[in-house]
Amino acid sequence: MALSNDDGGIHVREVGSYFVGGKSITLADAPSRDAFVAAGRSPARVDPNGDFETGQVYVQFVRLARPRSSLPLLMWHGGGLTGVSFETTPDGRPGWQQQFLAGGHDVHLADGFGGGRASWQRYPEISQAEPLFRTKQELWELFRIGPAGSYATDPAKRRPYPDTQFPVAAFDRFVKQVVPRFRTYDQSTQAGYNALVAQVGPNVVLTHSAAGPLGFASTIAAPDLVRAHVAIEPSGAPDPDSVDLKRLSRIPHLIIWGDRLGLNEPGNSWTELYTSTRRFHDALRKAGGKSTWIDLPSEGYRGNSHMIMMDRNSRQVSNLINSWLKENVND
Amino acid sequence: MALSNDDGGIHVREVGSYFVGGKSITLADAPSRDAFVAAGRSPARVDPNGDFETGQVYVQFVRLARPRSSLPLLMWHGGGLTGVSFETTPDGRPGWQQQFLAGGHDVHLADGFGGGRASWQRYPEISQAEPLFRTKQELWELFRIGPAGSYATDPAKRRPYPDTQFPVAAFDRFVKQVVPRFRTYDQSTQAGYNALVAQVGPNVVLTHSAAGPLGFASTIAAPDLVRAHVAIEPSGAPDPDSVDLKRLSRIPHLIIWGDRLGLNEPGNSWTELYTSTRRFHDALRKAGGKSTWIDLPSEGYRGNSHMIMMDRNSRQVSNLINSWLKENVND
Repeated sequence: MALSNDDGGIHVREVGSYFVGGKSITLADAPSRDAFVAAGRSPARVDPNGDFETGQVYVQFVRLARPRSSLPLLMWHGGGLTGVSFETTPDGRPGWQQQFLAGGHDVHLADGFGGGRASWQRYPEISQAEPLFRTKQELWELFRIGPAGSYATDPAKRRPYPDTQFPVAAFDRFVKQVVPRFRTYDQSTQAGYNALVAQVGPNVVLTHSAAGPLGFASTIAAPDLVRAHVAIEPSGAPDPDSVDLKRLSRIPHLIIWGDRLGLNEPGNSWTELYTSTRRFHDALRKAGGKSTWIDLPSEGYRGNSHMIMMDRNSRQVSNLINSWLKENVND
Repeated sequence: MALSNDDGGIHVREVGSYFVGGKSITLADAPSRDAFVAAGRSPARVDPNGDFETGQVYVQFVRLARPRSSLPLLMWHGGGLTGVSFETTPDGRPGWQQQFLAGGHDVHLADGFGGGRASWQRYPEISQAEPLFRTKQELWELFRIGPAGSYATDPAKRRPYPDTQFPVAAFDRFVKQVVPRFRTYDQSTQAGYNALVAQVGPNVVLTHSAAGPLGFASTIAAPDLVRAHVAIEPSGAPDPDSVDLKRLSRIPHLIIWGDRLGLNEPGNSWTELYTSTRRFHDALRKAGGKSTWIDLPSEGYRGNSHMIMMDRNSRQVSNLINSWLKENVND
């Protein structure tokens, strides 16, 4: 797919950002305490009480001067990640943000659930849960770049899957985009994403990993606005028995999975997510809905990690998505 | 100033991002502990040990198809803030990112020192200091939107300065972009910004508040690369007696201050920052350097807050900066 101008550029109306969702809260009666602030300085007496904004979603947008689609693409990142997932790949290739702009969509990249520019909250006073920090080894294995035990601190000693599509030499650079992760999100998180959908109006949602369930729920909440949902390795889907699937009959879904999910292996992280999503997909089709399921290895794409949007064949996959959108979404 | 195309658009070569600076660290022998993760779930046993990336600077770029300046503009935010400072204003007007793109510069917005997409570090294991959370009241007063005691939780009851340029109705929306703040930064932070300068090559640096000292130091470190420094209300400047000012003789500086600094009031936050910066400015001029000092009220701009780039007259100030750049910077 070529970029939209002969000289490799895109004609942009405006770049910018906005926040949506969240609320003001007042913290009162929390005890003051002393906090270490810097070597050689006295501890600071911290009074945690006051008014704060919490739960907002940050959205960075690029609006095209002449979009070919009337439907902006909303891109929602996974857990411990931010909208950076969709920007330039760790090895410096144009990211899906750029590819979908070139495909003619306005693009809105979100940072949400306590990551990146959405900020995060004081704990335990506001967020009961504390954030967790994934190590490089955990990321390497969980995101299926190499088998258990194949990570090493020294990049030269790492043993990735021989055919991995992940740009392995840029793994440490990738880790720079990882942020502390609040393990759960609640109805207020969902409300923020629903508010984003309502604010943008008719759109297409593309989700990754932990944002998948948010995308399914936002689609169910507003099928008049979410005109399609593309879910990249979603962290599960709703129980179809709890959803009025008829509401979704006109909303095409595209669900994409990478390689080496290890579904038959004991203790595997992906089995539950894959099978609950498959159950939703099957039920949606049975109810007359349109849902396309792509296991990339079955289509001849081998070696994809969990971070498909930055794998070496990321552009082939975004071309596939762009083609699916053109065929399945009326705008 | 008109945008660069008749239809109000800009011709962009690429949008994307990269990380620069920071390092890999290995945490070992830190004790495991139990962390609350969600209501109704067992605490998670957290082993904090492993490999992490720390200290990186995130940079979001927009490269023009046909920049009119060969010098990209690097925009560095203040403490407890992120690159969002320079994006769309809280009340929805185009931000300085857009204005300087329209002025013909490629623009690179950084998130640094533990904020936004630069992530932040586990404390106390990696960062000794813990981050601090500013309340709305603290932001309202420190950023000079209204006098002490004029903040109220209820927006209708707030009493801003009558002539404030801050878009007061959007104050709560502004607070959504505030992030927890690590009070100090060290040589590794400076190294990250210096690495950014080295990676981009010849450039213009525009800093705000706590990034001011980083900008002065990066300019001193690489006067062959930083061709001008625009400092918006910098949090001080180096002791001129400790700097070889001759190195800076060809690097124009522009230093801008808003209104109501309250320099004659006891306990004032700004006096030390203003006077140390003035001392640097005076010494730089005495040494034959070019430095322009603008107190906006003296130029007829009344009511500017600390957040000049989002004040209602932000575009007039960016026009002033664009004009100064055209007159003072050869590219």
